Amino acid sequence: MNILEIIAKKRDKQELTKEEIEFFVTEYTKGTVTDYQAAALIMAIYLNGMNSRETTDLTMAMTCSGETLDLSSISDIVVDKHSTGGVGDKITIILMPIIASLEIPVAKMSGRGLGFTGGTVDKLESIPGYSASIPIEEFIENVKEIGISVIGQTMNLAPADKKMYALRDTISCVESMPLIASSIMSKKIAAGANKIVLEVTCGNGAFMKNKEDAIKLAEEMKEIGKLANKETVCVLTNMNEPIGKTIGNTLEIIEAVEALKGNMTEDIETIVTTIGAYIIKLSGNGDNLEENKLKIMENINNKKAYNKFLELVKKQGGDISFIEDMEKFEKAKYIVPVISKNNGYVSELNALTVGKISVNLGAGRMKKEDGIDNAVGIMLNKKIGDKVEKRRYLSLYTCK
Amino acid sequence: MNILEIIAKKRDKQELTKEEIEFFVTEYTKGTVTDYQAAALIMAIYLNGMNSRETTDLTMAMTCSGETLDLSSISDIVVDKHSTGGVGDKITIILMPIIASLEIPVAKMSGRGLGFTGGTVDKLESIPGYSASIPIEEFIENVKEIGISVIGQTMNLAPADKKMYALRDTISCVESMPLIASSIMSKKIAAGANKIVLEVTCGNGAFMKNKEDAIKLAEEMKEIGKLANKETVCVLTNMNEPIGKTIGNTLEIIEAVEALKGNMTEDIETIVTTIGAYIIKLSGNGDNLEENKLKIMENINNKKAYNKFLELVKKQGGDISFIEDMEKFEKAKYIVPVISKNNGYVSELNALTVGKISVNLGAGRMKKEDGIDNAVGIMLNKKIGDKVEKRRYLSLYTCK
Repeated sequence: MNILEIIAKKRDKQELTKEEIEFFVTEYTKGTVTDYQAAALIMAIYLNGMNSRETTDLTMAMTCSGETLDLSSISDIVVDKHSTGGVGDKITIILMPIIASLEIPVAKMSGRGLGFTGGTVDKLESIPGYSASIPIEEFIENVKEIGISVIGQTMNLAPADKKMYALRDTISCVESMPLIASSIMSKKIAAGANKIVLEVTCGNGAFMKNKEDAIKLAEEMKEIGKLANKETVCVLTNMNEPIGKTIGNTLEIIEAVEALKGNMTEDIETIVTTIGAYIIKLSGNGDNLEENKLKIMENINNKKAYNKFLELVKKQGGDISFIEDMEKFEKAKYIVPVISKNNGYVSELNALTVGKISVNLGAGRMKKEDGIDNAVGIMLNKKIGDKVEKRRYLSLYTCK
Repeated sequence: MNILEIIAKKRDKQELTKEEIEFFVTEYTKGTVTDYQAAALIMAIYLNGMNSRETTDLTMAMTCSGETLDLSSISDIVVDKHSTGGVGDKITIILMPIIASLEIPVAKMSGRGLGFTGGTVDKLESIPGYSASIPIEEFIENVKEIGISVIGQTMNLAPADKKMYALRDTISCVESMPLIASSIMSKKIAAGANKIVLEVTCGNGAFMKNKEDAIKLAEEMKEIGKLANKETVCVLTNMNEPIGKTIGNTLEIIEAVEALKGNMTEDIETIVTTIGAYIIKLSGNGDNLEENKLKIMENINNKKAYNKFLELVKKQGGDISFIEDMEKFEKAKYIVPVISKNNGYVSELNALTVGKISVNLGAGRMKKEDGIDNAVGIMLNKKIGDKVEKRRYLSLYTCK
C-alpha cells in the first residue's frame, strides 16, 4: 500500500478501503506521510466526498491514533454531549450539573474557544481557582465521589484529528461534511462516550450556516454513530442569534448560574430541556422525553442542580463565594450602551457579528496562544422579536 | 490577497485572476506559500480544471519565476522543438543538425531522461567528450559560429515549474492537462523560443495514453501559444511502439547517425520530415510543407546534415572518431535474443513495457540521481506489422 495510490483513488472518485484509510491516518500521525500529501488527499476528499462507511473508518482510525479514555469504572453507559460551537453557548455549563443532580454520572471533557466561538473550559476557568486541568485519575475519582467533573482535553485524544484539523485550517478545507463529522465523533469516542448527544448549531454564528447543511452534518454523524455502534442523537439549535443574553466568560458564568436558579431565557430553557431529555433517555433513565423535561425543571426549582454546580466548582478548586455572591466578579471598566434609534421590533441580531465584536473586545481569542479577558463582553437587553423603544438600550458592551 | 482565498476559489470551481495566479507562483517559489498549500491548490486545479486564460497566466508566471534566455542576438525568430517524451525517441538528435544544415539557427536546450522516457542530453553525452553543460555565452557563440548548439538545462529556467513538478509527482497530480501544458510551455518560453513545434507523443509509452487526451493537450498548448503570442504547432506521434529500432543511449546515437546518413525506419522518416517541415515554415524559410520535406531529404542525401552533426559534436568536445567509426563505442557484454515461437506478424510491441525493460537493463534512471549505463539497451529486429518466422529473432537485449 502506498499514499500515491490512495491519493489517486480518491482523486478519481473511488471508495477507499478501511485499510487504506487506516494506513493514511497512522502514517500521517507518524509523519511518514507528509503534510503536502495529506493536503492533496484532504482536498480530494473535500471535492469528491466520502461515503458513511469511509467516514466511519476515518473516525475510528483517528480515535485510535492516540490515547483513549476508559470510563467503564464509572458506568457501562457513558453519555457525552457536544456542541458544534456558537456564540453565547453556555448550555453545557447549565446542563451538566442538572444531569449530575439526577444521579446520572457526568465525566465531561470540554474544549476551549477559538475565533468567534466560545469554549466551556474558558468559561469555567473564569471562576477564580477553578482548574480544568486536573489529572485523569482525579477526574474519574471526582465523578465517582460527587457524580460530576468537567475538565479540558488534557489527554492526547485523537492526535491525528488535531494534526488534520490544523492542516485543514491552512488549506481552506475546514467546511467538509465528512471531515467535520469524523473530527467531532473521533474526539467524543476517544473521550470514552458510547452514547452521544450532539447540539448541532445552525445559522450565521455557527459552522453550518443553513439548515440543509446542519441536517446533512447531523445525518452524517448519526450514521457514524450507528456504524460505530455509538448511539447518537442530534438536536439542531438556532445560531442566527446568540444563545441567551450574554457573551463573554464571566458574563456567561453569571447567566448560567442564574439559569440554574431558574432565571433563564426561553431559548436556553428549550435547548437545556430538549438536550437534557435525550441525555436522560440515552443513559437509560427514562424513555419519555416530556417526563424527562419535567425532571430537569424540578431539579432546577428544588435547587439540586444549583447545589450540584457549587459542589463541582468547589471540588475543582473554584472559589464558590463568587458563585454565591456574583457581585464579587471583576467588572469591566467601561460600559458602552447601544441605543435604539427608532421604535419597533428587533428583526435581526447577527450572532457572527456579535461574536466578532466580542473577540475584538478581548472576550475571545484569534489564535490558540492568545489570552482572554474574562470580564469583558456583551449583554443583550433585547433579542429577536422583542419590542424596543426609541432611545432605550438594545445592548451593552463592556470593555477595559 | 492571500493563499487561503485563492485555494477556496479554485476549490469552489471559480476562475482565478492573473494577479492571483502570479501571487501563488511568486510566493510558492519564495516559500511563503508552503508545499501543503500548493498541494491543496494543485489538487483543486487537477479536479476543477483551469481555462485557457488561467493556464496561459500560469505558464507566463512560471516563465517569469526564474532566468530567461535571450536569443535575440542570434535571430528575431527562434523556433524550438519539444517532445512530450517517449521510448526510443531520438528525433531531436536527427532533426536539429538537419535544420542547422538548412542555415536555420538551432539553439536547443534539452532535458534528461526519467523513468521509462529517455532524454536527448543523456544520449548526446554517451558520445565520449560531448559536454551538454557549457556556459550560456559559449552556447550562444557556438550557434553564431556553426549554426547549432545542443545543451542541457544549465540555467535556472522556470524554477516554479521545477518545484511544482516535483510536488505533483509526490501527490498523484502529474496527469493534469493545464498543469502539463503550462509546465512544457513555460520552459520553452523561458528558453527563448517565440515559435514552438511540439511533438505530442501518444500511446502506452507516452504520458498521453490515448488520442483524445493527446489532442486535448495539443489544443491546450496551441491555445497557450496563441494567448502568449508564441506561434505553436503540434504534431501527434504514435508511442504505442518505440520510435525506430533502438532503445538505450549509445544504441540510439548509432541509429541517429545512421538516419543522418539516410538509413532510417519509416516512422523516423515520417516524424523527422513532418516536424522539420513545420520548423522550416515557422522560421520563415518556406511555407510549402511538401517542399520543406524535400529540402530535408536533400540535405540528408548530400551529407550536409551528417556533416553538421559532426561539427556539433566536435564543437562541444565530443570525439568524432566514434561517429566516424561507430564500432569504437563500448559494447554491452551480453546479448540476449528474443525468439519468435511462431510464424506470423507482430501485432503489438508495447512501448511502455519495452521502456520499463530498458530501465531495468540500466539504460534509464528511476530517480534523478541514478546513473545510466550507456552501452546497454534493446534492439528491435521487428516492429508492428512485420512478418516473423518461427525461431527467428524478434529483438535483442544487451546487458552487462
